[in-house]
Amino acid sequence: MSVVTSGRYTFPNYNLVFFIFLQLGLHSVEGVWPLPQSITSSPERYPLNPQAFYFTYGSQSAAQEGCSVLDEAFKRYFSLIFPDYSSGRFYSEVKFLQWKNESLETFSQLVYQEDFGSYYVNKTEIEDFPRFQFRGILLDTSRHYLPVQAILKTLDAMAFSKFNVFHWHIVDDPSFPYQSRTFPDLSAKGAFHPMTHIYTQLDVRRVISYARMRGIRVLPEFDSPGHTQSWGKGQSDLLTPCYSGSTPSGTFGPVNPILPSTYKFMATLFKEVSSVFPDSYIHLGGDEVNFSCWKSNPDVRAFMLKMGFGADFTKLEAYYMEKTSIVWQDVFDYHERIPKDTVLHIWKGVPASYEAELRAITKAGYRVLLAAPWYINHISYGQDWRNYYTVQPLNFSGTEEQKKLVIGGEVCMWGEYVDATNLTPRLWPRASAAAERLWSDEKQTSDVDKAFPRLKDFRCELLRYFSFSDNAHGIPITHHRTLFYEVCLTYTDASVSLRLQAGYPGRASLCRTLQTRVPRCLIITDHVTFLSI
Amino acid sequence: MSVVTSGRYTFPNYNLVFFIFLQLGLHSVEGVWPLPQSITSSPERYPLNPQAFYFTYGSQSAAQEGCSVLDEAFKRYFSLIFPDYSSGRFYSEVKFLQWKNESLETFSQLVYQEDFGSYYVNKTEIEDFPRFQFRGILLDTSRHYLPVQAILKTLDAMAFSKFNVFHWHIVDDPSFPYQSRTFPDLSAKGAFHPMTHIYTQLDVRRVISYARMRGIRVLPEFDSPGHTQSWGKGQSDLLTPCYSGSTPSGTFGPVNPILPSTYKFMATLFKEVSSVFPDSYIHLGGDEVNFSCWKSNPDVRAFMLKMGFGADFTKLEAYYMEKTSIVWQDVFDYHERIPKDTVLHIWKGVPASYEAELRAITKAGYRVLLAAPWYINHISYGQDWRNYYTVQPLNFSGTEEQKKLVIGGEVCMWGEYVDATNLTPRLWPRASAAAERLWSDEKQTSDVDKAFPRLKDFRCELLRYFSFSDNAHGIPITHHRTLFYEVCLTYTDASVSLRLQAGYPGRASLCRTLQTRVPRCLIITDHVTFLSI
Repeated sequence: MSVVTSGRYTFPNYNLVFFIFLQLGLHSVEGVWPLPQSITSSPERYPLNPQAFYFTYGSQSAAQEGCSVLDEAFKRYFSLIFPDYSSGRFYSEVKFLQWKNESLETFSQLVYQEDFGSYYVNKTEIEDFPRFQFRGILLDTSRHYLPVQAILKTLDAMAFSKFNVFHWHIVDDPSFPYQSRTFPDLSAKGAFHPMTHIYTQLDVRRVISYARMRGIRVLPEFDSPGHTQSWGKGQSDLLTPCYSGSTPSGTFGPVNPILPSTYKFMATLFKEVSSVFPDSYIHLGGDEVNFSCWKSNPDVRAFMLKMGFGADFTKLEAYYMEKTSIVWQDVFDYHERIPKDTVLHIWKGVPASYEAELRAITKAGYRVLLAAPWYINHISYGQDWRNYYTVQPLNFSGTEEQKKLVIGGEVCMWGEYVDATNLTPRLWPRASAAAERLWSDEKQTSDVDKAFPRLKDFRCELLRYFSFSDNAHGIPITHHRTLFYEVCLTYTDASVSLRLQAGYPGRASLCRTLQTRVPRCLIITDHVTFLSI
Repeated sequence: MSVVTSGRYTFPNYNLVFFIFLQLGLHSVEGVWPLPQSITSSPERYPLNPQAFYFTYGSQSAAQEGCSVLDEAFKRYFSLIFPDYSSGRFYSEVKFLQWKNESLETFSQLVYQEDFGSYYVNKTEIEDFPRFQFRGILLDTSRHYLPVQAILKTLDAMAFSKFNVFHWHIVDDPSFPYQSRTFPDLSAKGAFHPMTHIYTQLDVRRVISYARMRGIRVLPEFDSPGHTQSWGKGQSDLLTPCYSGSTPSGTFGPVNPILPSTYKFMATLFKEVSSVFPDSYIHLGGDEVNFSCWKSNPDVRAFMLKMGFGADFTKLEAYYMEKTSIVWQDVFDYHERIPKDTVLHIWKGVPASYEAELRAITKAGYRVLLAAPWYINHISYGQDWRNYYTVQPLNFSGTEEQKKLVIGGEVCMWGEYVDATNLTPRLWPRASAAAERLWSDEKQTSDVDKAFPRLKDFRCELLRYFSFSDNAHGIPITHHRTLFYEVCLTYTDASVSLRLQAGYPGRASLCRTLQTRVPRCLIITDHVTFLSI
């Protein structure tokens, strides 16, 4: 996992999109999203010759050749920056300081292409580091299954926005798609479909490895003791039988906390999960436990009596949740037996209430993650990204020490109404608004209207990525930065069929005679690509 | 243009998805959306052999071979129903009564496929006709440009839902993408881009022809005198110069109604539009005219005085709008000089206000279209299709004669926040809810919860269409009705790469040994396909 804590990178010979914007009469913007902590660029620009361009490690760089994450990132970003030149030598001659995945992303946003295909970068100096160390996105693969491909694409887009944690809410009440080595019945009986709607061990490894190469941690969540209806299908005696009067009603409630078999099962499952997911954290959920079923069950009531919990079922949950890592705020709200290294995850309420929770949790000395204002599945009409942008995660009364306990935030895309058909347009670029809040300096990014043109521009970068990766006709869109060739061909007034030929390299010379330029956002989105502000 | 006024079609040897649902324990539903006026099906089912299956004209059918719309529809639906058998002979032996595009759609929804690839239809009798003759969808190609391909896909999906009018809101303030033969400067200077973001004459012809083959009229809208900012860029002296005090402010308002040149320009433009768009109606807009600019202009004020309009600018608009066909309700609200054959288009307000408008307009003897409750661009979280479904277009106090003047309704997808990246998931299947309201009997379709499983099922049909047409990897998805092969291959636990090979015909024999069946909705949506309820 690669976390940038601080870093300074300069592009000694190079520059930025300024020039383009001035030409088009658009807003003059910094052109990088999220905004670096400090960026100075000059109109002085330098050509980049893809055939003579190399990424290399600076002599002072801690990482050197052989660091697989960066070696691979060099290749990936070379192709992103110079789509016409997908092969070439890498990491040699030209020197840059301290590359990270994040700095490659920044650099890629600074390169632009002109009418005749030449690449440029303006002389730019950047000093950058993230404001918060935890910048997460939650995907919920239980309420609707998400194909692995959809997850991988999300990871790519996350890297563009400098998110660094993929919180994989992998199972929940509706389905259990994780194919466990130890308990294969959990997915065989608890997934929407035992063959197509599961994540095999290979799938999980692929996601983790793909994320790692992009500087992203994978934080798995196995949410219990509530949210476990699907677990019960493949594991008998795990859930609490609910009672109607003195007889079992046939329905089941949360995990049964009074049986030793429960703890044995959990220990075995989490031993597997800990070995499959290398991240040092596991999210254990612990939210929204429905006590009424526990209450209805005479055995549970007898256990409560024996343990001296009286009628306080929060104590029973606290008993169950004893060993945790990251948990939803509900666990804190019962405040018993929480180890000091637990991270609390705030998901409830409006600013006044989550600010109070931030104050209370940090006052108690716990680290905290803020998700409440970024429940991004809650769509509304218009530019609702503005709401995500104006969140102030440290706007609560507390000491400096307390503020340091806010380790970051998370954008949650719950799956009630989201599957692969609408994930991308609902997530991007709306989540990017939160990304800037979590990465950039709050004072420099307090003006939403000032941010808008930069976000619009960044949306185009995302759009080009999704067009590129989803290209429906298998035609290489060679100039994904300008789509120059597309313009050319559609100009012939010869129907859509010609349009679909856009991007054929062979047409380049024909097109270059036009001497005009497509504004960066006027992209032809015939197919795929689902981004909306 | 093909409008079904009434019709009865029977499938003598044939049935429906019932069987599948019973197998899966899902709701037992009629399986056709929108619901036919009357449908009776029996469990008795008959095999359909694609190699011996033909569509043909019944002897009593008004249309006979040589009717290009139906001849083409037979081919299209043959491929949709039997995706494995895309070639074959058509229109011969087997007889059906009175085919229409709409009845083909109904029939296609009745055919299902079983594990081993056989096709069936249950014995079914259907009597069907649409409740309203005008069932429209508005796309706005001015606020964001929509590629022709996105329009064609929308037309396909419209036909599946039995919509029959494409209201093309082609130009507006933000851009003028229509490439006029007579006034090429309008798009050259008024489109977002003069080459890529326009509709050529060929594009327009293609849209009209594609729509016609699917029984859909194309109703063009050139909205004036307001909503014309983009027109002014390519046509000098068309817009009213606004004044700041006694001097022109440099900005422009609505079309200038006092210059003879305006009427000459409009006459020439609309002569062209009438010849390009064969539909007997043109929508002339007439909504939201900002009077303040007219008011500021001394020449306009002088003209008002001369005409005896006093200070009533609604009279000036009425003067301008004299000859109209379909117009937005605003024109009625000024109620002067509206020809009796004008259709008024209601777009404003909550039920109480649009019901009052329905009452008033029909009382005045005008025909009316209802769009107000179906502004589908206004998204909200959750199942907002329910709101579109529960609209009651005839729920106003008025005589039977008045009710007959409600000729239909329209779903409007305004383009402020919509482009090709999110059009499909925002439109479908939400618009299908309105489609059933406009097609089916209101009493039989008054229960939203009962409609839900049918809509879910219909969503899968749409999803398969979009998966099929957008298939990102160019791999033929041969069994788009069951995706049987995909299941087989993904079961091997051998990573995503195998999954992408799904649908290769060569794998069929291997797969068929599995003897299992994928529930119809458990579709693998790795790529493309953007439908959300």
